[in-house]
Amino acid sequence: MLKRMSQVVLSVALLAGYVSVAQAEMSREDFAIKVRKSGFTMLTWYMGPMGRMLKGDMPFDKAQFQRNAETLAFLSKLPKDAFIPGSDKGETKAKPDVWSKADKFKEANDAMESETAKLAELSKGGNLDALNEQFGKVRKTCKACHEEFKTKSD
Amino acid sequence: MLKRMSQVVLSVALLAGYVSVAQAEMSREDFAIKVRKSGFTMLTWYMGPMGRMLKGDMPFDKAQFQRNAETLAFLSKLPKDAFIPGSDKGETKAKPDVWSKADKFKEANDAMESETAKLAELSKGGNLDALNEQFGKVRKTCKACHEEFKTKSD
Repeated sequence: MLKRMSQVVLSVALLAGYVSVAQAEMSREDFAIKVRKSGFTMLTWYMGPMGRMLKGDMPFDKAQFQRNAETLAFLSKLPKDAFIPGSDKGETKAKPDVWSKADKFKEANDAMESETAKLAELSKGGNLDALNEQFGKVRKTCKACHEEFKTKSD
Repeated sequence: MLKRMSQVVLSVALLAGYVSVAQAEMSREDFAIKVRKSGFTMLTWYMGPMGRMLKGDMPFDKAQFQRNAETLAFLSKLPKDAFIPGSDKGETKAKPDVWSKADKFKEANDAMESETAKLAELSKGGNLDALNEQFGKVRKTCKACHEEFKTKSD
């Protein structure tokens, strides 16, 4: 029923021109998997230049760093929306623990949100040492969650 | 040079555990293509429930509608970041006009940003007729940009 309803909705979206045929034919669960992967892809994209600036591989640009840090803080709130029930099967590396240890998974999400929010706050000041330290804390939240909730195979 | 630099950076990111092996081996241009597709996927995800609520396919939930509308307004600012020079080749449906008619493409992006911002603003009030009309305007910005800047094949 839910699946059928979501297909009707996607057909409407298809006619309206904002989704592709491939997307309209997808179940809501498969679409959720695609969405959370998309979110992580975007997190990585905005982290990249910040990491590069902090390593000295590109010049520090305070305005760009701040925009990326604020974007990261916003994006970090989104992936959790797409770990919907039933989306543990399919093209996903999410471990069953995401759902069976929901409290722990929420803690891991909260840690990402809180550390990226701190990075965004610090980016207003632009102190490189402080940013470097905080960026390290953000990365630890990525790593910790991957280790606990994502299968290793790539 | 740019490509090599980005590969060094991605190797660091790989070691830090926030990107996959597949992502680390990607050129910056291919990664940009993946990122903008990810952005559009997320836009669709947050539009879905709003469309459903407005059609009466699910109960109107003002708080959820508002969160989705605000998320949409934020996300709509992002895809433009990933239409970088050189990313016109590869797994993309972007027409060369994205780059050769950059002013027109910026106008199309601005329209999406401005109409989604209005939707987010209206979502605070929760007037269904107003939301319905504005949602239609948002969809038109999707469609207009796809028609002008995206190839049809799917």
